[in-house]
Amino acid sequence: MSIEIVIGIDIGGSLTKIGAVTRDGKILYKKIIRTESHLPFSNFKKRLKKEVDLLRSKLEPNTKVLHLGVGAPNANPLTGNMENPPNLKWGKSIPLVKAFEAIFKLPVTIANDANAAALGEMTFGIGKGMKNFVVLTLGTGLGSGIIVNGKLLIGEHGVAGELGHVNVDPNGRYCNCGSIGCLETYASVTGIKRTVFELLANMNIESVMRTYSFDDLNGENISDAALEGDKIALKAFEKTGEILGRKMADTVAHLDPEAFILSGGLSKAGAILLDPIKSSMENNLFNAYKGRINVLLSKATRSDAVLGPAALAWLAIDGK
Amino acid sequence: MSIEIVIGIDIGGSLTKIGAVTRDGKILYKKIIRTESHLPFSNFKKRLKKEVDLLRSKLEPNTKVLHLGVGAPNANPLTGNMENPPNLKWGKSIPLVKAFEAIFKLPVTIANDANAAALGEMTFGIGKGMKNFVVLTLGTGLGSGIIVNGKLLIGEHGVAGELGHVNVDPNGRYCNCGSIGCLETYASVTGIKRTVFELLANMNIESVMRTYSFDDLNGENISDAALEGDKIALKAFEKTGEILGRKMADTVAHLDPEAFILSGGLSKAGAILLDPIKSSMENNLFNAYKGRINVLLSKATRSDAVLGPAALAWLAIDGK
Repeated sequence: MSIEIVIGIDIGGSLTKIGAVTRDGKILYKKIIRTESHLPFSNFKKRLKKEVDLLRSKLEPNTKVLHLGVGAPNANPLTGNMENPPNLKWGKSIPLVKAFEAIFKLPVTIANDANAAALGEMTFGIGKGMKNFVVLTLGTGLGSGIIVNGKLLIGEHGVAGELGHVNVDPNGRYCNCGSIGCLETYASVTGIKRTVFELLANMNIESVMRTYSFDDLNGENISDAALEGDKIALKAFEKTGEILGRKMADTVAHLDPEAFILSGGLSKAGAILLDPIKSSMENNLFNAYKGRINVLLSKATRSDAVLGPAALAWLAIDGK
Repeated sequence: MSIEIVIGIDIGGSLTKIGAVTRDGKILYKKIIRTESHLPFSNFKKRLKKEVDLLRSKLEPNTKVLHLGVGAPNANPLTGNMENPPNLKWGKSIPLVKAFEAIFKLPVTIANDANAAALGEMTFGIGKGMKNFVVLTLGTGLGSGIIVNGKLLIGEHGVAGELGHVNVDPNGRYCNCGSIGCLETYASVTGIKRTVFELLANMNIESVMRTYSFDDLNGENISDAALEGDKIALKAFEKTGEILGRKMADTVAHLDPEAFILSGGLSKAGAILLDPIKSSMENNLFNAYKGRINVLLSKATRSDAVLGPAALAWLAIDGK
């Protein structure tokens, strides 16, 4: 009997992850390469082709590759293109589906990276069995994927679920997108770094956080400091959780989900982030939702990034 | 040939509207009665039964009544009950479906009133042909109904789409729901009255608005004053539009809809409300959405309120 697999590819600003994934979510082979997004897309295509060929050569002879699933920033399933990706210098509109179908001779399905992550949680992760939930990926920015009635919410133009850019404060922080006060300027790894620096500027408490430059701060050293009782770090998590929880209550008023699933670097902080999020969300929920919405931490690790795109491929095969 | 109709019932805090509606949205007969929500639900049931029997007696003999659709505050399609309706004193949970199926011997489908209005716009109104849009009913409060892929968004617990209770300002106005700063305390007939009073308190401009008590203010006299150039009234519309437009941009970042459809008393103000809404929404939209989202005014009049519940009934008949 032959083994059926799909190939999942997660294209990120710095790294691209490639994996061969079975229907039950077993990763048979995986590889991480540099995206090198400063070089032209044609260069990326060539290197990706080489890696995927290598991957296919390593699979057992009776393995059948059925489909290619791709998660990428600003990938639009309705057009098949990646549109104005802010961190990739490949142009305004990159025809991912067309390009990959041509070089891989496989059917290709694409989705925004955080949307693919939501499908990964639903198919292989903690969202299994849930039909209405929201994934928030708290990394450099804040990505989101919305599942409604067991399906990815795509929207009219293919770009639903950009919760990193809901507004927290019209007079707030400058965002990379050009707007002011977007949620991801508060609730992301970069956001909590900004909050630490704001607190260091406003308060005169001693803190190990004062020994770090902005560039050296990261999710881990802030959460390590918080766990050791550093008051600035703790306050940064509280403030981050307060703001994110309040905006999550707004999301609930739209979608009435069963749960939120938090993933990405900042989510690894665990309870010091989760507790203030839950308490702030609960305080801000409209009565009809109180006590009914779960907030969960994803079990996916960084190297599981291919599972989202693989789920996308398996769902496409099943016509879902 | 027999004529097939459904009965649509819109239960409001003060008035209940009853109508016999054909598949193409023709209202053959309608009647408005007082809800008298201070009297027990059993009293309402009796009076409603009488009116529906009267309606049926007036229909042509070859008319077949297929279904009953009911829109009501806090009506939950998953439970069949009206749950904690704030303006009706009928108890915590009123079993609408069970009660009405028993007295009318017809299949009954219920929905939250604003959700039913969204189905009405999709089936008979300005939302015809659209698959992704949001209806905002700007009346005493702010209700909403969300259509995703041509279907009403229900949510996990049957209570999706409570956009009146997204948060504008955590230190803002007190809301009937017990929270602070909810959108409906700004963007509704009551909301703009509060804004007029706030402006009258803060500014020392002459205004015809100074001749009204809070209870005598309404959407019409504020919009009449604005149209005659009254600065306080104009500023109230600007502020209302600015806040609503900003929160609508958040809604777009969730749902990526084709359009918003505004209905209800305040929407009758037309351009003086619509222009500041559009400009504020557009300013606050994430790049991927700019220039792509329409804001439309409903063509439904107050007496069309039965069309939403009727659409709900027709969709139920078609299994949609």
